[in-house]
Amino acid sequence: MSKHIYVINPNSLTVVTAAIDQALVPMRFPGGPQIHCVTLAEGPAGIQTQRDVDAVTAPLCIQIARSERDAEERGGTASVFVIACFSDPGLYSARESTRQPVLGIAECGVLTAMTLGQKFGVVSILPASIGRHWRYFAAMGVTARLAGDIAIGLNVAELADQPRTFARLCAAGEQLRDEQGADVLVLGCAGMAAHRAALADHLGMPVVDPTQAAVAMALGQAALR
Amino acid sequence: MSKHIYVINPNSLTVVTAAIDQALVPMRFPGGPQIHCVTLAEGPAGIQTQRDVDAVTAPLCIQIARSERDAEERGGTASVFVIACFSDPGLYSARESTRQPVLGIAECGVLTAMTLGQKFGVVSILPASIGRHWRYFAAMGVTARLAGDIAIGLNVAELADQPRTFARLCAAGEQLRDEQGADVLVLGCAGMAAHRAALADHLGMPVVDPTQAAVAMALGQAALR
Amino acid sequence: MSKHIYVINPNSLTVVTAAIDQALVPMRFPGGPQIHCVTLAEGPAGIQTQRDVDAVTAPLCIQIARSERDAEERGGTASVFVIACFSDPGLYSARESTRQPVLGIAECGVLTAMTLGQKFGVVSILPASIGRHWRYFAAMGVTARLAGDIAIGLNVAELADQPRTFARLCAAGEQLRDEQGADVLVLGCAGMAAHRAALADHLGMPVVDPTQAAVAMALGQAALR
Amino acid sequence: MSKHIYVINPNSLTVVTAAIDQALVPMRFPGGPQIHCVTLAEGPAGIQTQRDVDAVTAPLCIQIARSERDAEERGGTASVFVIACFSDPGLYSARESTRQPVLGIAECGVLTAMTLGQKFGVVSILPASIGRHWRYFAAMGVTARLAGDIAIGLNVAELADQPRTFARLCAAGEQLRDEQGADVLVLGCAGMAAHRAALADHLGMPVVDPTQAAVAMALGQAALR
Amino acid sequence: MSKHIYVINPNSLTVVTAAIDQALVPMRFPGGPQIHCVTLAEGPAGIQTQRDVDAVTAPLCIQIARSERDAEERGGTASVFVIACFSDPGLYSARESTRQPVLGIAECGVLTAMTLGQKFGVVSILPASIGRHWRYFAAMGVTARLAGDIAIGLNVAELADQPRTFARLCAAGEQLRDEQGADVLVLGCAGMAAHRAALADHLGMPVVDPTQAAVAMALGQAALR
Amino acid sequence: MSKHIYVINPNSLTVVTAAIDQALVPMRFPGGPQIHCVTLAEGPAGIQTQRDVDAVTAPLCIQIARSERDAEERGGTASVFVIACFSDPGLYSARESTRQPVLGIAECGVLTAMTLGQKFGVVSILPASIGRHWRYFAAMGVTARLAGDIAIGLNVAELADQPRTFARLCAAGEQLRDEQGADVLVLGCAGMAAHRAALADHLGMPVVDPTQAAVAMALGQAALR
Repeated sequence: MSKHIYVINPNSLTVVTAAIDQALVPMRFPGGPQIHCVTLAEGPAGIQTQRDVDAVTAPLCIQIARSERDAEERGGTASVFVIACFSDPGLYSARESTRQPVLGIAECGVLTAMTLGQKFGVVSILPASIGRHWRYFAAMGVTARLAGDIAIGLNVAELADQPRTFARLCAAGEQLRDEQGADVLVLGCAGMAAHRAALADHLGMPVVDPTQAAVAMALGQAALR
Repeated sequence: MSKHIYVINPNSLTVVTAAIDQALVPMRFPGGPQIHCVTLAEGPAGIQTQRDVDAVTAPLCIQIARSERDAEERGGTASVFVIACFSDPGLYSARESTRQPVLGIAECGVLTAMTLGQKFGVVSILPASIGRHWRYFAAMGVTARLAGDIAIGLNVAELADQPRTFARLCAAGEQLRDEQGADVLVLGCAGMAAHRAALADHLGMPVVDPTQAAVAMALGQAALR
Repeated sequence: MSKHIYVINPNSLTVVTAAIDQALVPMRFPGGPQIHCVTLAEGPAGIQTQRDVDAVTAPLCIQIARSERDAEERGGTASVFVIACFSDPGLYSARESTRQPVLGIAECGVLTAMTLGQKFGVVSILPASIGRHWRYFAAMGVTARLAGDIAIGLNVAELADQPRTFARLCAAGEQLRDEQGADVLVLGCAGMAAHRAALADHLGMPVVDPTQAAVAMALGQAALR
Repeated sequence: MSKHIYVINPNSLTVVTAAIDQALVPMRFPGGPQIHCVTLAEGPAGIQTQRDVDAVTAPLCIQIARSERDAEERGGTASVFVIACFSDPGLYSARESTRQPVLGIAECGVLTAMTLGQKFGVVSILPASIGRHWRYFAAMGVTARLAGDIAIGLNVAELADQPRTFARLCAAGEQLRDEQGADVLVLGCAGMAAHRAALADHLGMPVVDPTQAAVAMALGQAALR
Repeated sequence: MSKHIYVINPNSLTVVTAAIDQALVPMRFPGGPQIHCVTLAEGPAGIQTQRDVDAVTAPLCIQIARSERDAEERGGTASVFVIACFSDPGLYSARESTRQPVLGIAECGVLTAMTLGQKFGVVSILPASIGRHWRYFAAMGVTARLAGDIAIGLNVAELADQPRTFARLCAAGEQLRDEQGADVLVLGCAGMAAHRAALADHLGMPVVDPTQAAVAMALGQAALR
Repeated sequence: MSKHIYVINPNSLTVVTAAIDQALVPMRFPGGPQIHCVTLAEGPAGIQTQRDVDAVTAPLCIQIARSERDAEERGGTASVFVIACFSDPGLYSARESTRQPVLGIAECGVLTAMTLGQKFGVVSILPASIGRHWRYFAAMGVTARLAGDIAIGLNVAELADQPRTFARLCAAGEQLRDEQGADVLVLGCAGMAAHRAALADHLGMPVVDPTQAAVAMALGQAALR
């Protein structure tokens, strides 16, 4: 019976879903779990406020049910769900709504960074998310390992300007590395994977794309079910 | 210009709102801010799961706007909002949606308990809320002061059986006091204020009703606006 | 039976008591608890060292007994005591000496700030108090929420130069906000309430006067007794 | 160029290596990284004391170099190393000795458990390891999530008595779940994977085999190199 | 110039001072610093409440000045002061009043225990001190290492009944060891040194007398001045 | 029966051992425990990497046994062992290998600093040790008291250039004091004691030589055996 991992982009931007899909190419193995990247059509154009975060919970749970049926129609089971937004919106609601594991990319990105360095820095998109992230890291119990969290001041739409985005990522990464003691970085958004390798080269330290981190952990969960 | 505090019960049970209203009688002073207890008609019959928590955010923000208009119609201003559910649902979304302070009863109940004892115990209604509470206390950064959190195993509807509820509260309070080191208790639900004084007498230690605690802090915020 | 809140200024400066009294005007409601601001005649001219802190304990406990008799003479009860010095001198001794709640303005100021922002900054008067504050915040278990504590380098007497004091408060507040991540401020002294509103306007973030915060919480305690 | 993950059992017991190898069968995908389980011939018969832990560092670094050559001979690269002992012996020395990522099974087991439950319990083999584990979890900064750590009192050799081992695992797991609040378990030894599924069924909560958790994270690291 | 360490017993019981003096016999070396045990005549008959703690500050600072003169009269200098009460009363005031180091026995007892075991237990005399100790350990930043704190329910005078005291110490120590995970014990009172060795034998784990621990650290400070 | 404290320098540089020996002159009292400084001939020329740390464990345990025999030949007992390297290499292995107390200079230096100031700064020799130190301080549970850790960028051999070393120590100490809030310093290497007093004078705050701190605590342990 085939195994299926559903990576749900909770915003409605198919271009973000396509970028996520591209980032997961190296994690698709013949004979391994199938990885499906899904756009939450009911989601907002970008999850930037707490209201955006709270608002996607209900459609997200519906999407999980849809994906479970999709897996059945494919003759398999939905093994693991991944919520591909760095605010991990609806994570605990989703866990109530299915018996399968549900992983958030923020938690997996941070936990993976903890194997690659001593202090992790986070590069976020907007300043308003810093406080929300801190509360989440505190709820996870991992603030002792946090070096800092810096916003590059670009919203989801503005990330499309690739050179500007990369320049801002470099500047934020340098500040986290040189002034705040980070020796590993986590990208604080699902849509920045394309910059990961170049940013790691530029900074000379590991950079974690949280969606890739979550899907790796999902592969492990799927393998055991 | 008159000042108005809106205490919003985010579940749809008017009997709970009435109980909250009754609990706030001692905090209404002639010439002081007016305290309005409001039922969120769109809310569920009880907020017991994370999905319940997330689902009330949107109607809650609408209710806040409605209350702001209500205050204007009364010739005053909505000075402070209190969300009267121990999961503090929609707290950060509400804060985005108004310029007035918004207080959660869980945060205020816990912070008030920290002035009355060294280690606070929480008496919750259902076991499923324990993990959610812990994450919230951790996000608040106050777990060092937490003695324990014990569920009495009754849902919002079952709380109506007063003698059984009181007996369970006493048992949980004794366990928190004698085995887990609590010297102050927080009622982990908006609908248990009627038991507060008797429980404090029974246990010989302070018991905090979180809604009363939040409204006291709201009085202070209102006074300064 | 009338209810009485006693706000005890543990230094002997009546000008400070008068300023506190002025700051509490908005919290006096007809029919509400009566709020009495009392000068500890035996106190020093300013509480600036640890020896000052320890030395006021004994007279403070005597003052509490005097205030209890005063309330009786007024035909009521002393419902709550507030110690109006940011070092919370004698707080635990006072709690041993009366059955009524005793609140410290430092603890109440910090706890109230925790409802208004993610990270609180403290503006203190003298550098020597920084370490003492840190130990107290650690004993409270709230250092995870502390952004920083900066002294303006003026003693209690020097605070009387209002323009200089305000300029220093602004500079310290800006540094806490811009360099240390504070999004809410606590005034680290009982005698700076007159600057609160202007400082909040200047900084664009909430500023908590700790005495006002404590009296709000005292109103809640008094209401329930 | 083929990718190779080397899972090094730092004790000399080939039966343990074989058990690890068996546990990793579901994580081998055609076209995915090749997973090699290697016995450290120079290792002790079981890593039970701190001296055992420290003593394997030097041969472990030599083994890493040997494995790097082995990968070259296979026409590929050693992408990730996994140290398959729950004391994560030599982890930081190994990281100094190679440019590839090195993962410890204890860290990966714990981090993975943090996505599956609120509080993780650890089932260890010998009492002497409890203090060592605690120091390690504290160094990781994750003790806030630790429910407890219970030793079943069997050394590596004694684990071979499967029914007894399983009975002890069940008893320890029940105690962690019922008395210490664990809602997810981590097996505190590389050689207990065969009991994982049955123990999870028995306890009704997730059980993490740390080697499987580490190899999942290794797959993610390998995919990106 | 001779060096002098002053160990000040802040209660007025000369029998306690004599017991402390006896406990320090092994730490007096010919040619080493002279160790003087001094009774604070103005102190209470036992330091059991917070008011007792605060009340000794003023006479303690006077005693420090007296001891400094005493050392001069002996042709030497007062090198280090030790406050021999487990509440470390007046510690920070004393540090303000002299340029010499001042050590508290509670801090030194706990810090020394941290070199002898993973989790320290404290055996206190009265239940009222538990909360006070916790705040102090939190202010020190060492609660992560605290296993528990159990009161034997005897006041300073009652400690004189040696067999009963020893029996209670054994019972509390066993509970700390077996139920709360302590592997090293700190005696939570200056007057229990006579039981130290026997209690350590009985429990099979190290027991720290805090005055001995403080005087050892004082020897180190004295040597360098 | 004579008492002997063995201070083991785990690197092979006899010049370092001689410097340690010199630093301990003030702690040798006629009639007190004899203090022997021993070079670990099998050690590396400097302990700078984690591999260096792990590699000295085995010879260190052998040296402990040798020292125990040495004490017997002198007609006494080895009372306490001190490992004189700021990485505390082999500390827990050494504790397994002898029934006598074993102290690490890093732990004792930090614990002693906690009696002399509120926030301790550490001056390390090489940047690579910063992360290792942090993990160790976290495992000790004392990071709440850590102000910062700055490397002066000199290896053990380069420390011999005294003026350069002192200049770097001053610069690092100033940065820790002025920018990171340290009010006490710990020398993060066994070979810098000669600079202690001058550095304390220069900075105007206490500076702890960790070997002196450890030997003071060892004197206390030895006295009681």
